[in-house]
Amino acid sequence: MSLPYEEELIPPGNFTMVSTWVYRSSFPKKKNFPFLKKLGLKSILTLILEDYPEQNKKFLEANNIKLFQFGIAGNKEPFVQNQRNHPILIHCNKGKHRTGCLVGCLRKLQRWTHTSIFDEYRRFSSPKSRSMDQQFIELFDASQVWRLVDRNHLPKWEELDVPW
Amino acid sequence: MSLPYEEELIPPGNFTMVSTWVYRSSFPKKKNFPFLKKLGLKSILTLILEDYPEQNKKFLEANNIKLFQFGIAGNKEPFVQNQRNHPILIHCNKGKHRTGCLVGCLRKLQRWTHTSIFDEYRRFSSPKSRSMDQQFIELFDASQVWRLVDRNHLPKWEELDVPW
Repeated sequence: MSLPYEEELIPPGNFTMVSTWVYRSSFPKKKNFPFLKKLGLKSILTLILEDYPEQNKKFLEANNIKLFQFGIAGNKEPFVQNQRNHPILIHCNKGKHRTGCLVGCLRKLQRWTHTSIFDEYRRFSSPKSRSMDQQFIELFDASQVWRLVDRNHLPKWEELDVPW
Repeated sequence: MSLPYEEELIPPGNFTMVSTWVYRSSFPKKKNFPFLKKLGLKSILTLILEDYPEQNKKFLEANNIKLFQFGIAGNKEPFVQNQRNHPILIHCNKGKHRTGCLVGCLRKLQRWTHTSIFDEYRRFSSPKSRSMDQQFIELFDASQVWRLVDRNHLPKWEELDVPW
């Protein structure tokens, strides 16, 4: 018996949920749009430097999704931590290195140990894990971020401990 | 400058968020308890057959977490899909095969393509992916599950499409 399902959904490669309302993935293609629509995204943070493709821009416009574009990852934390931008999808090209660095820094704010952070980093960057990325994450000073975040719109993550 | 952080948190190995309020991991040890506490879990679904360790039972009791124990994964879906059990953590020993099968079946209910499901399965079972597990997921008939779920307590996952 076949139930009246809608068509199958195709998440972008390397897609996963990072924390409530924060997702990560590789670069979303047209075939991924129906899936992304289901997520009810309010914003997308892309870490690529190139122009965003026209068909992606149209998709964002049609679905009222804000686009944030930054070429460098590490210091953009406060941004992901502002609940007014959630649900948010973070992506680069492969969803491995740049996205992996950003998520790694986020995990430091969530007080994960480096062992756990690197495990996750390698799970998504395998088999091309870069030790420089892991060093970047290790050197990232989470304590500097709290000065920059908007205290009124922090996400309600159970595992997030703010120092005030 | 060192801010007054609490101690670091150690997630169980292979930990991740599957969907809102559904987590997966390897077998939680004592060192992981402070992390688990932060998740505000209402229940844990363990797929191991052995007795649950005494210290884990005590942790669950102290934190009012319900324990569900089943040796076989595939037909326990309705269970994970009942929002009254959320937040829920699903685990076996390594968080690779049994947990991977169950999450794979869950992804079918969320209408992911097999390609995406197997990508995720392999990411967490690597380098010990089993083709029989993937075959199990492929043969799993999602349409049979809907008869069993409690319609009144379905999770509010955007990507979940129910056939009624």
